[in-house]
Amino acid sequence: MHVRRSLLDLDDLSAPDLHYILDYAERIESSPDVRTLEGVACANLFFEQSTRTFASFNLAQLRLGAHLVNLSPKDLSLATKGETIEDTVITLAAMGFSLLVVRHSEAGFPIRVAKAFDGHVVNAGDGGRAHPTQALLDLYTLCREFGPLAGRRIAIVGDIAHSRVAHSLIHGIRRLDGEVTLVGPQSFATEDDAADGVLISRDFDAVLTDVDAVVLLRIQHERFDAMPLSMEEYTRDFQLNAQRLAKLATHAIVLHPGPYNRGIELDESVLSYAGWRYARQVAAGVPIRMAVLDFLVHGMR
Amino acid sequence: MHVRRSLLDLDDLSAPDLHYILDYAERIESSPDVRTLEGVACANLFFEQSTRTFASFNLAQLRLGAHLVNLSPKDLSLATKGETIEDTVITLAAMGFSLLVVRHSEAGFPIRVAKAFDGHVVNAGDGGRAHPTQALLDLYTLCREFGPLAGRRIAIVGDIAHSRVAHSLIHGIRRLDGEVTLVGPQSFATEDDAADGVLISRDFDAVLTDVDAVVLLRIQHERFDAMPLSMEEYTRDFQLNAQRLAKLATHAIVLHPGPYNRGIELDESVLSYAGWRYARQVAAGVPIRMAVLDFLVHGMR
Amino acid sequence: MHVRRSLLDLDDLSAPDLHYILDYAERIESSPDVRTLEGVACANLFFEQSTRTFASFNLAQLRLGAHLVNLSPKDLSLATKGETIEDTVITLAAMGFSLLVVRHSEAGFPIRVAKAFDGHVVNAGDGGRAHPTQALLDLYTLCREFGPLAGRRIAIVGDIAHSRVAHSLIHGIRRLDGEVTLVGPQSFATEDDAADGVLISRDFDAVLTDVDAVVLLRIQHERFDAMPLSMEEYTRDFQLNAQRLAKLATHAIVLHPGPYNRGIELDESVLSYAGWRYARQVAAGVPIRMAVLDFLVHGMR
Repeated sequence: MHVRRSLLDLDDLSAPDLHYILDYAERIESSPDVRTLEGVACANLFFEQSTRTFASFNLAQLRLGAHLVNLSPKDLSLATKGETIEDTVITLAAMGFSLLVVRHSEAGFPIRVAKAFDGHVVNAGDGGRAHPTQALLDLYTLCREFGPLAGRRIAIVGDIAHSRVAHSLIHGIRRLDGEVTLVGPQSFATEDDAADGVLISRDFDAVLTDVDAVVLLRIQHERFDAMPLSMEEYTRDFQLNAQRLAKLATHAIVLHPGPYNRGIELDESVLSYAGWRYARQVAAGVPIRMAVLDFLVHGMR
Repeated sequence: MHVRRSLLDLDDLSAPDLHYILDYAERIESSPDVRTLEGVACANLFFEQSTRTFASFNLAQLRLGAHLVNLSPKDLSLATKGETIEDTVITLAAMGFSLLVVRHSEAGFPIRVAKAFDGHVVNAGDGGRAHPTQALLDLYTLCREFGPLAGRRIAIVGDIAHSRVAHSLIHGIRRLDGEVTLVGPQSFATEDDAADGVLISRDFDAVLTDVDAVVLLRIQHERFDAMPLSMEEYTRDFQLNAQRLAKLATHAIVLHPGPYNRGIELDESVLSYAGWRYARQVAAGVPIRMAVLDFLVHGMR
Repeated sequence: MHVRRSLLDLDDLSAPDLHYILDYAERIESSPDVRTLEGVACANLFFEQSTRTFASFNLAQLRLGAHLVNLSPKDLSLATKGETIEDTVITLAAMGFSLLVVRHSEAGFPIRVAKAFDGHVVNAGDGGRAHPTQALLDLYTLCREFGPLAGRRIAIVGDIAHSRVAHSLIHGIRRLDGEVTLVGPQSFATEDDAADGVLISRDFDAVLTDVDAVVLLRIQHERFDAMPLSMEEYTRDFQLNAQRLAKLATHAIVLHPGPYNRGIELDESVLSYAGWRYARQVAAGVPIRMAVLDFLVHGMR
């Protein structure tokens, strides 16, 4: 048996791990009542606001039959009683919790948790660093559409620099041999993210004719001070709209991790585009998270 | 099979629907372990503070075996990430939620939710507009006491103008052929609420001798700026107290949706009155909500 | 059958009650899947911040199969709608809740709840007064280590005056015939706490050579205005550190209710001391709370 302790970023997973999780999620999607974590004690520590990730992990845990406790920041005695997060999670382990799901605005926070916690930790988003389960459901959506990703070209468009989803997704697509082109203005798509066979382009229109999938991103205003370009410039150059949709190959699909902002990274025409896969991404969220939690606890089987 | 999508106000329900739900709640009350929503994913979106409605829906969902996620306003990314409530609930549907319970201070908010959400929506109170499950448990209490309501006279007393419970209850009593008299000062009991065979009176004492039930209401201070009359005038004219209780017929009962304020709409003598039915109303809350949720998902059966 | 309605402080429990609960927790610890409160409706009313007590009660209730609703202060309509806590809990009883767990910064608050509530109440900490389930898990840890406590000497060190855990624990140790020495500066270890065979000492070093167990306490800064001595004086006289550990008998153990503050009541050497029992205390939290909840509902059996 092969067991991964924690999922902190997608590069924790080998290609076989990835394939196993994606296949397992597909099986769960057709037969969702698995209850393989019956009575396993899970705590969700969401220090940062979340709707879809929070609800999706809750539903995944309930469907697996886990015992679930949501600890909100106000429940956590960190500040007022002078306890460190390390001591808090050591306590949770001693109490019988074997799985923590952690979301925090500080990059690396779940790594600190995983070092101290004697059990499994899932990163549900840390600052602008990583968000591996979101990237997994994006990968799942791409693979269900295309099968193997080798030779497929995927454009990731917008505020890549501040997007933890993008950072995790680049790892995942590369691990499965897909090709990535980052599209955005200088300050949003930097050479830092372009290592290891990842291309950068400033010309969205030129890229469009040549890709199998476009992943749109929200501008993460909460993670920087001032917009590096005007909103008019941004939407002119990087908004996906009817004119740009027309340039896509007919088989091409469009993804967005959500929440999306109409009139900024996309206009209304995208929402009725035949290849718009947002609903499928969201639908994949629960089975992917069930597969991840089961994989961490039980390993491949 | 006959399925109602949502319960937004009591006028969504026909007289047969009402009878079905009231009968079903009665069966549940004697045999509460039904689990007919095993594994159905429910999300509770309470944007407005609540103790009894929140706890009562939670308990109803747990007893039905539903998978339950409570999303508090701080979890909902509406404000900070620029997402609309419509997009949020489209996402919840895609994730697998099939039932939402929504409470909001804005009248009509659950209607917006129901238009966007591909599933069932229950209004758990929207501003001063409607609160159908509370009205249903009041109806249930009246029907358990009296059987058919035809010919029964029910006085609703106090701040009717700002009471969503009163608005829903008037619909329900009229649907079951009961007679309604609204009692309150001009600004609390207006002609707007008096259409369709509903009487208005300013003279509580005169009404008391002639009714089968009195429904008291809390003054909804949070929904208007200034009291239109002094508290002394209000309690003098509209408080139910020992003198006024003495005018009631011996079979007459008194209801209150709670929370009640001693010394304002009622005095202590009401709490020991033989016909005080507050505890029965509250007790009806869980079976009524179980019956509503089951009816929305499974229809009459 | 012998049923206790509520657990408000440890002096609610006789010596046989205590033995029954400690034995029952031990059986649960070896076989935790008991589900003896299947479908019993529990509400947790935590008006005061908590990580370990909150998580521990939640897990205990889930393992017992109870139906669990967490009501946070913002859900409780006390302030805005003018309802008293007494009326709130009367309502919860009418709704079908049979067990409340209450934590509040006001000493005596759970007693008010228990007087009004027609069901079982567990005090999960009230101001500086009592915290009986924490004291029980401390007792459990002591008894698992030593067997009967008669003749055993236990030092409780630090801010006893503001510690609800200490107050409850003194009752419990005395009830089981253990001997207690309180150690701290005048304003933290007062004659008020020393009645009934409990000793007081200002000389930690002298006490150390002669005890079987040391219970360290956090300074409860949130419960008083100004430190009565400098932090340097406090740590010099009352911190447990490597030099002081060396004075303990080899069989002696060290407890702390948590959260602990490194560098104040203890230094790092304590955390690697062979007799440091913090993790065992925490691990005892869930079985002890399961045993208490089961005992209140079902009595001795």
